[in-house]
Amino acid sequence: MEDKTFNKTKLNTVKRIPKRGSYDKPTIYTILDSHYLCHISWEDAGQPYIIPTAFGRVEDKLYIHGSSKSRMLSMLMDGRPMCLVVTHLDALVLARSVFHHSMNYRSAVIYGHAQKVEGEEKMEALRVITEQIIPGRWDEARLPNAIEMKATMVLSIEIDTASAKIRTGPPSDDTQDYDLPIWAGLVPVIHGYEDPIPDPGMKISQPVAQSAIEKVKKYQ
Amino acid sequence: MEDKTFNKTKLNTVKRIPKRGSYDKPTIYTILDSHYLCHISWEDAGQPYIIPTAFGRVEDKLYIHGSSKSRMLSMLMDGRPMCLVVTHLDALVLARSVFHHSMNYRSAVIYGHAQKVEGEEKMEALRVITEQIIPGRWDEARLPNAIEMKATMVLSIEIDTASAKIRTGPPSDDTQDYDLPIWAGLVPVIHGYEDPIPDPGMKISQPVAQSAIEKVKKYQ
Repeated sequence: MEDKTFNKTKLNTVKRIPKRGSYDKPTIYTILDSHYLCHISWEDAGQPYIIPTAFGRVEDKLYIHGSSKSRMLSMLMDGRPMCLVVTHLDALVLARSVFHHSMNYRSAVIYGHAQKVEGEEKMEALRVITEQIIPGRWDEARLPNAIEMKATMVLSIEIDTASAKIRTGPPSDDTQDYDLPIWAGLVPVIHGYEDPIPDPGMKISQPVAQSAIEKVKKYQ
Repeated sequence: MEDKTFNKTKLNTVKRIPKRGSYDKPTIYTILDSHYLCHISWEDAGQPYIIPTAFGRVEDKLYIHGSSKSRMLSMLMDGRPMCLVVTHLDALVLARSVFHHSMNYRSAVIYGHAQKVEGEEKMEALRVITEQIIPGRWDEARLPNAIEMKATMVLSIEIDTASAKIRTGPPSDDTQDYDLPIWAGLVPVIHGYEDPIPDPGMKISQPVAQSAIEKVKKYQ
């Protein structure tokens, strides 16, 4: 039986404004799949660290990659507890009172453990990460050779538990504040891409890559 | 004497691709000031956590805020080591080889300690955070009353050390790959705001707030 929901534990339970919390996989995975940039934290000797990095998802597994010499990856590969978050900012929420100002957002927080990936899964993980960033690019570019694979480390992250937190909709002010002569509403945030800029170092004139055209189009 | 540079220590030294690292305050503070959303990590009993949250900066001090009941704030206020990162994604970097794909970005990582803010500084910190998110809004909205101030916790973060990491420019491929018939270049990322959406709950018709108009204009 495949569980569709993460168990609520002390670790993942959304405590502040619990109605914004969600524990079901489709909600959490949709937030993950709408981006390719996450922030990862871990601790070493009591010191917390955060690094922004790319990721990819296949079913219940996440992949990250980097240099074989990466400090983050070499610490995470021992399986220590880690946390990964993906955050989408959708709007500034301007209320009548400063107190009720907020943001509309969708964030997913993953608690898990990483382990090193080798062999065929390693190449597949690189494909998954690349395609999560820019679909179609894997088939356009030169694939990694043996030396490059050796210089690259890939980790898979097993999800122990997770939660999402989402705010949508207009501001919510105190009843009496609706009589104040103050404009309230949303300032929506846009995320998108501009027209691709060819590398000035191109020796051979090439049409713009289809993956780049599609990426820009998707957000227009 | 005011130091303009953070000391390079084991903690903040950029190890992977050191030429992308920077330790001077103007560079780091410009990255901080270009945003209002950060990710904060801390650890409790060996478990790392991350939360996205708003922040504001005044000179060498950062402010964050939240509910008086916030789990994050109540943990951080004991002064445990914490890490705060601000990340700007500027472009996808499409190289000829998968291996040299990258992103153009500017990130600032702050290592510090938090403490609770009270009294006049608390109200000023809330102004700083609000103005970092949307300049001009503090003077338009109803300011916090005593009950709201009590329900709000503000922490100041003293920066122990920090670093920035920046990538700019076109892809950088292996020499022989420049002869491949593969398009390479940048797909620039846009961040911006769309026209403000008035709260449907407005009782009194109001012109759109000047702060919202300016926010949208700045990114057009």
